[in-house]
Amino acid sequence: MSTRGPAIVLVRPQLAENIGMAARAMLNCGLTDLRLVSPRVEPTDERARRSCSGADTVLEQARVFDDLGAAIADLTRVYATCPRDRDMVKPYFAPREAIRVAAETIDAGRGVGFLFGPERTGLENDEITLADAIVPFPVNPEFSSLNLAQAVLVVGYEWISRQSDAPARHLRLGKAEPANKGEIEGLLKRLEAALDDCGFLRNEQMRPTMVRNIRAFLLRARPMAHEIRTAHGMLSGLIDRPHGPERAGKSKPRNPARED
Amino acid sequence: MSTRGPAIVLVRPQLAENIGMAARAMLNCGLTDLRLVSPRVEPTDERARRSCSGADTVLEQARVFDDLGAAIADLTRVYATCPRDRDMVKPYFAPREAIRVAAETIDAGRGVGFLFGPERTGLENDEITLADAIVPFPVNPEFSSLNLAQAVLVVGYEWISRQSDAPARHLRLGKAEPANKGEIEGLLKRLEAALDDCGFLRNEQMRPTMVRNIRAFLLRARPMAHEIRTAHGMLSGLIDRPHGPERAGKSKPRNPARED
Repeated sequence: MSTRGPAIVLVRPQLAENIGMAARAMLNCGLTDLRLVSPRVEPTDERARRSCSGADTVLEQARVFDDLGAAIADLTRVYATCPRDRDMVKPYFAPREAIRVAAETIDAGRGVGFLFGPERTGLENDEITLADAIVPFPVNPEFSSLNLAQAVLVVGYEWISRQSDAPARHLRLGKAEPANKGEIEGLLKRLEAALDDCGFLRNEQMRPTMVRNIRAFLLRARPMAHEIRTAHGMLSGLIDRPHGPERAGKSKPRNPARED
Repeated sequence: MSTRGPAIVLVRPQLAENIGMAARAMLNCGLTDLRLVSPRVEPTDERARRSCSGADTVLEQARVFDDLGAAIADLTRVYATCPRDRDMVKPYFAPREAIRVAAETIDAGRGVGFLFGPERTGLENDEITLADAIVPFPVNPEFSSLNLAQAVLVVGYEWISRQSDAPARHLRLGKAEPANKGEIEGLLKRLEAALDDCGFLRNEQMRPTMVRNIRAFLLRARPMAHEIRTAHGMLSGLIDRPHGPERAGKSKPRNPARED
């Protein structure tokens, strides 16, 4: 994981808990560059530390500035996040697109920052003017007030999702070994024989379809080798069950129902 | 915005504040179906209400169950979220992919739920077994413990992002009118004349390049009609400035430097 990433700039944050939770969300997403502009409390405030749940290094390394201009002076590209629409002629970027461009900028060796306004009021227009673009969050228009740390998480989540090389979906195997076709067919043949024996497959017309359905179901489950072994054990248990009408009787005619 | 969405199932949540913040994150993302399995406190607990910041309806409509099986009985597809890898043979879905499939399932009229485990311990293996697939969050492996409400937000954010028909980027105009080419060229011509007058463009060899650069800069800014008017005002102010060496002297030769 890259140790570089966009700076998170909290402008006039009011609550120590939110600073701490923002630091936690940042570190969850591999971000560490926290900057505070005129915060009401220091980033190392005891309540901030308690709510950061172990992300103390982010709080300890956080830089405090008196004004926004100084906080972003070394950055090349700055995004102003805001939940509500602003009546300002500015480029608007969806969070994902902003992160995509931010990553390119960072890869080119330049600094990027995301601005977050105070809890109740959000960024002032003069502060938004300093940004290159606005990043509105896609939220429920009827309940759009996102918690400050939640807003930070959205940016961080897009950042770490972008870096993730995890496939959209996969089957985690761990120590398990997928069954090969021979193992699967071995179970199917034995199951088919047992179902013939008990008369379940006695309908000649339906038989091919039923066998196909059983195979389709088994393959769709993508069984592991140990699961095939478990299934063999289950089958043995069912065939050999003492109360059953037939005990794996090899001498009995297969599929007696066909005689009907 | 669709009023339907996946159910959020909190299994044995311990802290009232997290229930409240999860409800807030849900409503931020347009989700309202909150289910609690053996919570330590009722969803309408006073501390939950305080931390939901106005999402009281979600808490009031939340359903409480004694066991997970009952909580998900009406759902067709269930995802278990977890920050850490589990050594379990299960399909794994990235959050975005899980939401994509969830949306298809919901569009087909079937119910979908996302399970979230208790704050410290996460879901137990028996609980994960009830799910169809596992959704691991892409988090910093060295600091992977996501706050419960933050985890809920990731799912909600993917849900509402999916529904968003906002373009990846756009220029918000509001009441502003983009300048047309005639307005832009009018300003450029006037600026060019003023720069000729003051001698800025006296280098004949560089002149075409400089004029091109000025035009490129102006076009890249995608100026609004009112901004062109402002620029005209600025230009008038500069040309007519009383302390300047030349006062819009129409009778002076244009570009006197060329005479050198």
